[in-house]
Parts: sequence; structure tokens; C-alpha cells
Amino acid sequence: MLRYLHEHIPLSRAMEVRVEAAAREAVELSAPFGPNVNHRATAFGGSVSALAILAGWTWVHLRRGDLAAPVRIVIQRNRIEYREPVDGTFRARVLAPDPGAWAHLVTATERWGRGRIALQVAVLHGDERRAADFRGAYVAIRADDGT
Amino acid sequence: MLRYLHEHIPLSRAMEVRVEAAAREAVELSAPFGPNVNHRATAFGGSVSALAILAGWTWVHLRRGDLAAPVRIVIQRNRIEYREPVDGTFRARVLAPDPGAWAHLVTATERWGRGRIALQVAVLHGDERRAADFRGAYVAIRADDGT
Repeated sequence: MLRYLHEHIPLSRAMEVRVEAAAREAVELSAPFGPNVNHRATAFGGSVSALAILAGWTWVHLRRGDLAAPVRIVIQRNRIEYREPVDGTFRARVLAPDPGAWAHLVTATERWGRGRIALQVAVLHGDERRAADFRGAYVAIRADDGT
Repeated sequence: MLRYLHEHIPLSRAMEVRVEAAAREAVELSAPFGPNVNHRATAFGGSVSALAILAGWTWVHLRRGDLAAPVRIVIQRNRIEYREPVDGTFRARVLAPDPGAWAHLVTATERWGRGRIALQVAVLHGDERRAADFRGAYVAIRADDGT
């Protein structure tokens, strides 16, 4: 997964993103402080946000095999609240959605060519301190859907 | 402004951010496609989001001279909707807030040590096509406010 991210999304390489977990039930990415610092010597909000976006995307990407046809996965919208400044490595952990949410995406994608899922991602730093709360909507679009 | 961003926020350098306008009434940043591409050969949502975050931050930063005391400026929360895929250079343009919004931040900061402003940023590509709509809340915190 790490090689995929670094090869296909150059910003993940610039951010020095690492994969802490990349399994069906657990996705967690991390980023070191150095390349993601801002003018105040805390982590740049753009980096925090980008790591959460990537974590949610990775979660969907790892499950795409459940779909009968190839899909592309895109983010539709997101919101994020920055709860406290980050001054070290930070981690974006996908929180398990409702059990029916993934099944709903699968059904919708088979039926209508696209399906959507909302994912929550917790950005943590230090000893499991919550640095930011992220919520993003991702869409799977069947590759043969020309729209 | 460009040098400030590139020196203090290394990710802006990795994204090859450029300053198209950095004046009190007009802030627009741009980023080329290459370093901000994703696995689908469209712009990575994390880059789109980060450019909008930076544009809003720059808008506040350029007005900080209105405040009697030095402040630090941080983003509190944001939301973004990705309206269409981006396949070239993209630009983040801050939309003028209500005239009273800045005055309100100034008053609140002088009175209570911190003030907040909500800014809308349009992300554009091609011939002024709207790629994403961003809204972020920024807080100015007086540097002598220890909280």
C-alpha cells in the first residue's frame, strides 16, 4: 500500500506518509512532523487534512475487491475540525462505519454504477490525543460508467 | 508572500504553490498539476484542500497589521465540496466576506484576545470553472494570550 501511495500520489511522498495499518478492518496512516510543519512550528492544517483524506480513500481502496466491476474512488466532500495543535508525528485512523454502510455502497454501485460512503477519521498525536475530527464522503464509480 | 510560504510551510514548496495575488482585497494562490496529481491523473483532494486552507490563511495574514498586538492565525475548521475533477493548474481565490466580518474579528481580538472569521474560497481551474467550494473558520489569537 505504501508503494502505491508514494508512486501514484506524489504529495504523499513529500509528506513522508507511512502506513501503520492497511487491512480491511483497520486503516491508519502516519506522517512525521518535519515535512508537515507550518509557520507556527505546529503541523500545517493542509497536511492534517490531506492525511485524513488519504486514510479514508485507502479504506475504500482496500475493499474494492468486493465489487464485481472495477471502480474509481473519489472524495466528494469533507469537513474537519482541528481540536489542538500538533507538534510531532500524527496519525489518521479510520473509524469503523456502521456495518450496513459498506454493503449499501456495494449494492448501489452494482445497481446504479456508483455508491457513496461517509467515513470518520480521527487524527491522533502523542499518546492517543485527538488532534482533529474528519468526516468525508467517498464515491465509488464503476469504471465503465462514462459520466 | 511566496518566499514566506515556501520558507515556513514546506508542503507549499512541495506543492509548488504560486502567489497570483496577495493584496488586502484579493488573494489568489495557484498550484501546478504535476506535484499534486493523484492515482487517477486528476488533482489530489488533499492538495486542493491544502491550497484553499493556505489561501484563507494568507488573507488573514495580510491584514494582521490592523491588530494592535501580534497574533498567531490558526484554522479552526473547514469544509470542502469537490465539484469536478481537476486536470491542470488550479487556483484558490478568497471570496470577499461580509464587510463587517473583519471588523468583528479585530474588535473581538482586542477585547478578548481572540477573534474568528469565516472565509469562503473558490477553487477554480481551466477557464474559471469551479472545481471546489471551500469554507474555513480562522482564529486570530493574541500572541500574549497563553491559552
